[in-house]
Amino acid sequence: MQNRHTAKTGNKKMTLDSKYKESYFRKVIDDMDGYTPGEQPQRIGGWVKLNTNENPYPPSPAVAKLLKEVDPASLRLYPDPVCRELCKLVAQLNGLHLDNVIIGNGSDDILTIVMRSFVSEDELVVCPEPSYSLYPVLSQLQGVDCRCIPLNEDFSLPEDFLRHAIGAKLLLIPRPNAPTGTAFTMDKMREICGGFDGMVLIDEAYADFAEESCVDFIHEFPNVIVCRTLSKSYSLAGIRLGYAMGSHHNIAGMMKVKDSYNVNALTQKIALAALEDQAYLRGNITKICETRSRLCSALENLGFKVTPSQANFIFVSPPDGNGEKLYLDLKEKGILVRFFPGPVTGKYIRITIGTDKETDKLLEALK
Amino acid sequence: MQNRHTAKTGNKKMTLDSKYKESYFRKVIDDMDGYTPGEQPQRIGGWVKLNTNENPYPPSPAVAKLLKEVDPASLRLYPDPVCRELCKLVAQLNGLHLDNVIIGNGSDDILTIVMRSFVSEDELVVCPEPSYSLYPVLSQLQGVDCRCIPLNEDFSLPEDFLRHAIGAKLLLIPRPNAPTGTAFTMDKMREICGGFDGMVLIDEAYADFAEESCVDFIHEFPNVIVCRTLSKSYSLAGIRLGYAMGSHHNIAGMMKVKDSYNVNALTQKIALAALEDQAYLRGNITKICETRSRLCSALENLGFKVTPSQANFIFVSPPDGNGEKLYLDLKEKGILVRFFPGPVTGKYIRITIGTDKETDKLLEALK
Repeated sequence: MQNRHTAKTGNKKMTLDSKYKESYFRKVIDDMDGYTPGEQPQRIGGWVKLNTNENPYPPSPAVAKLLKEVDPASLRLYPDPVCRELCKLVAQLNGLHLDNVIIGNGSDDILTIVMRSFVSEDELVVCPEPSYSLYPVLSQLQGVDCRCIPLNEDFSLPEDFLRHAIGAKLLLIPRPNAPTGTAFTMDKMREICGGFDGMVLIDEAYADFAEESCVDFIHEFPNVIVCRTLSKSYSLAGIRLGYAMGSHHNIAGMMKVKDSYNVNALTQKIALAALEDQAYLRGNITKICETRSRLCSALENLGFKVTPSQANFIFVSPPDGNGEKLYLDLKEKGILVRFFPGPVTGKYIRITIGTDKETDKLLEALK
Repeated sequence: MQNRHTAKTGNKKMTLDSKYKESYFRKVIDDMDGYTPGEQPQRIGGWVKLNTNENPYPPSPAVAKLLKEVDPASLRLYPDPVCRELCKLVAQLNGLHLDNVIIGNGSDDILTIVMRSFVSEDELVVCPEPSYSLYPVLSQLQGVDCRCIPLNEDFSLPEDFLRHAIGAKLLLIPRPNAPTGTAFTMDKMREICGGFDGMVLIDEAYADFAEESCVDFIHEFPNVIVCRTLSKSYSLAGIRLGYAMGSHHNIAGMMKVKDSYNVNALTQKIALAALEDQAYLRGNITKICETRSRLCSALENLGFKVTPSQANFIFVSPPDGNGEKLYLDLKEKGILVRFFPGPVTGKYIRITIGTDKETDKLLEALK
């Protein structure tokens, strides 16, 4: 038996064996570092965790009720591969048909599906900069370049954004943007969606905290997909549920690309229960937006530069403009926020809106 | 505002608009049909469902206990992105280090990760034929050809299998094989893993029902990854949990490719509970293997050609060699089995091993 993976010396097999590669990975994979998610201390106790934009309040009581009623024996069966009930409910909540909706294992899954649907190796992706730091990583995985187009100093879209996007197959654009929390104007979004000759994914992970949504763009522009998540506004980061809305043509194509059973049975049930409880959602959002206002005012009084936010986090720069030092100081005091190194982002930290008690602790630590 | 997605006539914009594409999808996506999973009737009542290799028995009682104890508030937090506790337990059960394990959102997720890790566009994947019908679909999604190498008539690997695999970057090989249920000999598996100049994924979705496993190959061959699932033997198709085992180098690379939070919090907890209950697993497997023996004997007595199975399903050909007719006849009687069209597979149906009562119903229907 010939084994080309075992070192042999002094015989003809050397020719074969010398071909043995240290790594069989694609070059793009070997070359990349991988994405670093925000810290997830597995012992929560003690930390004030304001670093990964989780909702500080529990999910709807309907979720607790559902968990008590689940029949464990039902877990032996495969889940509905296309999440029909969820598609119907999401469609209903957004005035769409169920064919306009696809459900993902978190909106990260949706992003991966979009990338694999629309971009081939050696093509080009564009996104604003700063923006969601996962976009360039997903591009690398797909073997494509990601051109990051710098935002203006106030984090608005530059006048000539479209010119910089020419030649790209896919534009990833979060609204509200992360980590800045700003929402690009609807006029500018329309201009970009109408003028870009490629697909546009509008990532509305934080849209429930914003004044406006681009969902209706999917009727206006055949090249627009809008995605959402239950991780933030519905307090369900743990279940992994995201969804995308688009034309029937775009959704049907993406359905071919997703894993067959990408959303597990419990997540489907929990998401249904949470989405049905719109009153709880609205109450929760109101509380978070109120705390956001209070925190912004307090930080401005402390001399911080506060970026106007339409999300459940804020992007703020301390008086000395040293984001990293502030991040480390807060960590020492048991408060986790997020720091993004870089010439622009390095002046800031991103703070998730917590409970009022957590906000008091944060302000106490900053004084 | 220029909108290249709205039909304009009689002006210079025509030049731009005529470039507007009907579809922005990658050509490979537009060209493909997508994978058709086995039927999942959402109203189970009335059906004897023997078509997607689910386990007829409920998961371990530890799963029911856990569901009662889950704190719904914990779902507001992201899950552990790397499933550390699960990796540790899987490693312990297989005599490995936790760095040798990666957890996936079902083993479909593992297959996608492997495909994206090791195969670039225009490269080649190989697998046996007949085999898991998802492999060619996953290859198409990655923009690569999948060369399906015909098995011998008794569904063993052909002598010259390696020769047909030359030039491929990745070999996908299930053991036991699906849909045939046969297990390739360990000697042949060793020969192939040692002689193939590319990665080998040994898909052990059904290995808990087999006599031997290839897990130890990962110490012997730097190019081998073995994957498993909790969908079949642990009765947990609904939670989506698969895992792969390989060298630290291979696992570390695959970790870069997976979605950041690919396994939700509940699935992680449920899988831990189920994996800890090895006694329940063994009891369950024994029951299924006993029913498998009984069903095989009964079908042989009815004149069926029965392929020797080491899985929780059997691949059998009726006396008239018409698989499709039998599939349709059984469906009419409320019994779902799986039929795979094709010159070889079309003579057979695949029957999942159900409870003894379901087996009696099936035999009654066949008489």
